[in-house]
Parts: sequence; C-alpha cells; structure tokens
Amino acid sequence: MTVCDIIQKKKERRVLNGEEISFFVSAVADGSATDAQIAAFCMAVLLNGMEEEECALLTLAMANSGQKTPRPQGGGVYADKHSTGGVSDSTTLILVPVLASLGVRCAKYSGRGLGHTGGTLDKLESIPGLTTALSPARFERQAEEVGAVVAGQTNETVPADKRMYAVRDTTATIDSIPLIASSVMSKKLASFADVILLDVKYGRGAFMPTPEKAEELARLMVSIGTAAGRRTAAAVTCMDAPLGSAVGCNAEVREAVAVLRGEAENDLAALSLFHAALLYRMATGASKEEAETAVRGAIRSGAAFKKFAQMAEAQGGDVRALEDPSLLPLAKHCAALTVSAAGVLDIDALALGRACALLGGGRQRPGQAIDHTVGFVLKKRAGERVAAGEAVAEMYYNGENGEAFSLAWGAFRTAETFTPRPLIYAVTGG
Amino acid sequence: MTVCDIIQKKKERRVLNGEEISFFVSAVADGSATDAQIAAFCMAVLLNGMEEEECALLTLAMANSGQKTPRPQGGGVYADKHSTGGVSDSTTLILVPVLASLGVRCAKYSGRGLGHTGGTLDKLESIPGLTTALSPARFERQAEEVGAVVAGQTNETVPADKRMYAVRDTTATIDSIPLIASSVMSKKLASFADVILLDVKYGRGAFMPTPEKAEELARLMVSIGTAAGRRTAAAVTCMDAPLGSAVGCNAEVREAVAVLRGEAENDLAALSLFHAALLYRMATGASKEEAETAVRGAIRSGAAFKKFAQMAEAQGGDVRALEDPSLLPLAKHCAALTVSAAGVLDIDALALGRACALLGGGRQRPGQAIDHTVGFVLKKRAGERVAAGEAVAEMYYNGENGEAFSLAWGAFRTAETFTPRPLIYAVTGG
Repeated sequence: MTVCDIIQKKKERRVLNGEEISFFVSAVADGSATDAQIAAFCMAVLLNGMEEEECALLTLAMANSGQKTPRPQGGGVYADKHSTGGVSDSTTLILVPVLASLGVRCAKYSGRGLGHTGGTLDKLESIPGLTTALSPARFERQAEEVGAVVAGQTNETVPADKRMYAVRDTTATIDSIPLIASSVMSKKLASFADVILLDVKYGRGAFMPTPEKAEELARLMVSIGTAAGRRTAAAVTCMDAPLGSAVGCNAEVREAVAVLRGEAENDLAALSLFHAALLYRMATGASKEEAETAVRGAIRSGAAFKKFAQMAEAQGGDVRALEDPSLLPLAKHCAALTVSAAGVLDIDALALGRACALLGGGRQRPGQAIDHTVGFVLKKRAGERVAAGEAVAEMYYNGENGEAFSLAWGAFRTAETFTPRPLIYAVTGG
Repeated sequence: MTVCDIIQKKKERRVLNGEEISFFVSAVADGSATDAQIAAFCMAVLLNGMEEEECALLTLAMANSGQKTPRPQGGGVYADKHSTGGVSDSTTLILVPVLASLGVRCAKYSGRGLGHTGGTLDKLESIPGLTTALSPARFERQAEEVGAVVAGQTNETVPADKRMYAVRDTTATIDSIPLIASSVMSKKLASFADVILLDVKYGRGAFMPTPEKAEELARLMVSIGTAAGRRTAAAVTCMDAPLGSAVGCNAEVREAVAVLRGEAENDLAALSLFHAALLYRMATGASKEEAETAVRGAIRSGAAFKKFAQMAEAQGGDVRALEDPSLLPLAKHCAALTVSAAGVLDIDALALGRACALLGGGRQRPGQAIDHTVGFVLKKRAGERVAAGEAVAEMYYNGENGEAFSLAWGAFRTAETFTPRPLIYAVTGG
C-alpha cells in the first residue's frame, strides 16, 4: 500500500477501509506523506465526499495520531462544548461555571481568535493576572478541585490534524464537510469528555452560510462522536447578527459576568443556558424540565457566578475585575453609531467582527498581540424597530482606522420589514 | 489574485481566464506556488475537467514559462513526432531519416525510457560511439547540414511542466486528459517544429486503455497545437501487442535498420511509413498518394538508410554497426518461449516491456544505466495461428530473474479465436 494508492482510490470515488485510512493518517503524522499528497487527498475528499463510517474512521485515526489528554484521576462526569465560531459568543465563559456549579465538570482546552474577534482564551485573559498557560498537572488539579478549567493546549495532541489543517488552509480545501467534521472531532476525541455539545453556527458571520449545510455538518459530527462511544449532541444556531450585545474581549467578559449574575436577558443568555441545560441532561440523565430548572437555579442562587470567580482565581485572575468594571476598561475613544433611516434593524455579525479585528481587537496572523479594550456595545438588537438617526451602538477604539469605521457603520441597516432567522434552528443527537 | 483563489475557482468547476492561468503558471515556475497548491490544482482539474480553450491557455503559459529552443537559421520546414509511449516502438528512428531524405527536416529532442523498455535516446546510444548529448550549437549545425538530429534536452525549456509533472507523479494526478495534453504540448510548443504529429497509443501497453479515451486526448492535443498556430495531427494507434518484433535496445535498432533497408514488413514498418507520409503531406502539401509514393521511394532507393547513417555518423556513431549486427550484440543467454496450447496468439505488450526492464533493459529510477543487449525477438505475431509447444519468441538475458521470466512466459497466450484490434484506429487534424 502507498499513499498514492489511497489518493487514487478516493479520486475514483471509492470508499476507504480502516486499514487504508490508518495508513494514510500515520503517513501524515510521521511525515512520510508529502504536503502535495495531503493536498491531493483533501481535494479528492472535498470533491468526491466521504461516507459517514469512512469519516468516523478518519477522525479516530487522527485522534489517535498523537498523545491523548489523560483523564483526571478523581472521577466525575466531564462535559465539553465546541463552537464552529461566531461573533459576540462568550457562551463558554457562562456554561462552564454553570455546569461546574451543578457538579458536571468542564476541563477544556480552548483556542485564540483569528480573523475577527478574540477567542475564549483571549477573553479569559482580559481578567488581570489570569493565565491560560497551565501545566498538565495544574490543569488536572484544577479539574478535580474546582471542576472548571479552561486552558490553552500545551502539547500537540493531534499532529495529523495540525498538518492537514495547515495544508488545507493554503489549498482552498477548508470548506469540505467531512474534513471540517474530522478536524473538529479528532480534537474532541483526543480529550476525555464524556458528553460533547457542538454548536454549529449558520449565517452571515458563520462558516456555513445556510442552516441546511450547518445541519449536515452537525449530523456528521454527532455520528462520529457516537461511533466513538461519546454521548454527543449538536445545535445548529444563528450567527447572522452578534449573539450578545458586546463585541471585543473586555466588553464580552463584562457581558458574560452580567449573564452569570442574572442581569442580562438576551440571545447570549438564552443560548448559554440552553447549551448548559442540554449538557446537564446528557451528563446526568435529568429531564428537560429538571435541567432547565437546575441551570436557572445556578444563576439565581449565585452559585454559577461564584464558580466563575473560583475558576478565575485558581488561574491567577484578579477577581475584583468581576465586581469592578473599571478593571475591564474600554478604549479611550467612543463613537455612537447611528442609522440613517427608520425601520427594523439588521446587524451584520461578520462586518462587526472584522471591524473589531481591524481596530486591534483581533488577529490577522497567529501570535499577534490584541487590544482587549476595543470593540462594540450594541444598544439595539437585530429585529428591533429604530428611528432615523437613532444611536444603535457604541464603538470603542484607540486609533482611527478608516476600513474598520466603514465596516462598522455598514454593519447596521434598517429595512421596512425584517425578521431575524431562528436562534436555534435544530438540535441533533444528545 | 492569489494561487488559492485560482484553486478555489477550479474547485467550483468554473472556467479560468488567461490572466488567472498565467498567474498560476508563473507561480509554479518561479516557486511561489507550493507543491501542495499544485497538487490541489491538479486534483481539481482531474475531477472537474477543463474546457478546450482553457487547456490551450494553460499549455501556452507552460510553453512560455522557460527558454524556448531557438529555430535554426537556415530555413526549411521542420517536422516533429511524439508518441505517448509504447513497447517495441522505434518509429522515430525510421521516420526521421525517411523525412530528412525527402527534404523535411527533423531536429528533435527525445527522452529516455522509464518503467519498461529504453527510450529513443537509449536506442540510438546502442550504436557504438553515438552521443545524444549535443550542445545547442552542434544541434543547430546538424539540423541544418544533415536535416536530421535526435538529442537529449540540455537545458530545462519548460520549468512549469517539470514541477507539475513531479507533483502529479506522486499524487495520483497523472491520468487527467487536460493535464496530459498540456504537459505533452507545452514541450512541443516550446520547440520550433512547423508540423507536429502525435501518436496516441491505446490498449494494454498504453497509458490510455480504450481507443475512445485516446481519441479524446488526441483531439484535445490537436486543438491546442492548432490554437498555437502549428499544423498538428494525431493518430490513435494500438498498443495491445508490441509494435515490432523486437523488444530491447539493440534488438530494436537492428529491426529499425531492417525497416530502413526495406527488409522488414510488419506493423512497425507500416506505422512508421504511415506517420512519415502524414508528416510529409502536412509539411509539403502533397496529396496522400504522392506522400506514400515519396516515402516508399525513400526506402526503396536507400536514401532513408543513407540519411540514418549520416545522422548517426554526425553524432559520433560507428556506422559499421548498421551493416554488422555483431556490433549490436544480443545478451549471452537465449531461451525459447513456447505456448502450451494451440490457437490464435495474443501477446501482452506491457508484460513484455516490464519483463525487459526487469532483465536490465529498462529503468526503475531515472538515471539508471541500462543493458542494451537484453530483450525479446518475436517469431510470431499477435493474431497468428500457432501449434501447441511452438516457440513464439526468443528471450535474451544476462542474469536470471524469476519475475521477468514469469512475466515473459505469461505474455504469450493462445485462444480459440482472437482478432487483434486495429493498428490505426483514427487520425485527427493534419
């Protein structure tokens, strides 16, 4: 068997068996497959597709290509959530402490943002002193003692995915549903979570433009997780407009804290609690009603907020920032964004995310430092009726940037009639 | 514009324009496109196809990616022939002197064999002393003074093709009709031939298994050549059985000499003279009858043989080898190959070609030295009726090789009835 034989078979639209998939993934991981061979394979998969079982085999082989994250000794059920990426989405910051306060542990590795706003790690680091660079021993201890930990990956657990992703990124082979599914799920399966929730975004600010494509990806990932013996669910949710009212690291942490204190009622709060309840049901076997009651109780009682402070403190964070917003400052300049015509408001999540990045709040290249203070605070929601000239958002910035300003102004439009698409389009698995 | 944009467009089955094709080919030639990008592009072309005009643009951009072979000063019409590769095919050795003796110049670059028997350069080098490594000045002088020269390429005229071919070779992207056509024709168009004949082989020993696929490739290459302003024709010819009676360098040169002397009447002679007549018509505007008469006359008069000797001598060859077969020796061991059952004979060209390579008569890797003395001399032709136990061929070898012997014995089969497929299936262009 050679790597070329495997590409040939996929090129002829035939289904690869387990032995062939393992051979290919080993060759990717050990470097014996060339970048060119990986690219040809990915393009053949993109154009010819993969069967569900074949994709599950690929994912498992990738998950097994490196060192797996060891399960903490202390027992307990572990939950994990992954989002395909959105704007103003700080659900992780909310659902992790909610679940941990209810006895469902969350010990997860998260990423940094690229392209638009910061990622979960960037947001957590807005809290002064907080570190996401934890040693494996410290990660494990916090998982056991606090039941909540969010950190950056220290070692490379899925080398096959790392190589394949790097090749896909430069060869127009990102947008393949089986390749996206295997990339996301290989990382989830290399970890130890017992229950996994995938938030697959659709819409303007998402990777999948239509809910139908997002649902296809969602179903495939659930089938892979289930085939691997993990309880897996996926929610297909809307990312036409920003999820919450804040865009930018410090603003988003402020908003997450408000949700955890029960002080914010919006799509961010709704979706975070929906996700938390779904994971709670999967982890405990509770009914829908029991789960919703438990999750609401964790907010109302203050237990979730307390758990968030405990997690932040365990990672070295100054928890006074959770009480005193001046420790999560916004940028020195503030401009009000208005709409020119009266009507129903529409907000373009992608435009705002990119504007935030251009203001310094996101990265153009991996490793870049970002400005946590810039971003947007929305005063009106998509679907609300607004008057001509009404201020719909505040823009926080430290330096002028014409392209960012133009994107930001263009992100707010009004129409005679406009109905936002549903926040939760579908849920599969669980 | 980025290389990734161009791959994306091809991936979406859209037609690339001239600007995009030039950008891509420049990036291939100057090294700014990565091997992975070339592989993804080639797989996308293989699976999504290319339109005729798009493929012509690709070919011209490739032909223009390096330094073109300058046209000799002296004037005259130049003809070139290219075969997609077969076994026992020494037509170049025959048609070059035939045409040159009739005033149609042939100054061509040829290749070495890889995979099965030797290539045209290997065969020519069977003649003691003959060199195919000619300086550009010597190549040009011989083109003008002798009208016939066959040499190895000294500089890299088509760098984009060289890189693309190397990537395709390891990524299962060889068998794409537009990519084969652009690779072959880019090299032809980088040279100065006025009339071009492409011999596209079909069958067991050929790259294209069916005559229909071969004809598709033939038509595409003719359309590219014509679009580039060259008079171009293609013949689709059979490569189920070896073309001549000899397989292996020295044996094939002996047979080519026999054809040039008018001493051999077989498919090799028929096809060589057919090709020569077709090129003669294209170069001179003669009628079919005039061309056939001229070509037969060149053999009968001895002018073609004399021209071959003149060419060999100009390249340093010892022309006594053309009179004295002991100067083109066969290997020291000879075994008779027999058939077990009576019937109509079928001969597998590919099996014999591979057996010859395993005996040392071909290369497994570029740059390997080859043994000119090994090979086969067929005593019976495919389609002939033979008796049980009858010797159908002689195998010449210097060392035992089980795999080669087994391939060689297996290459000869008999059947109750069997009709060879037509030698010339179709001719297009001209």
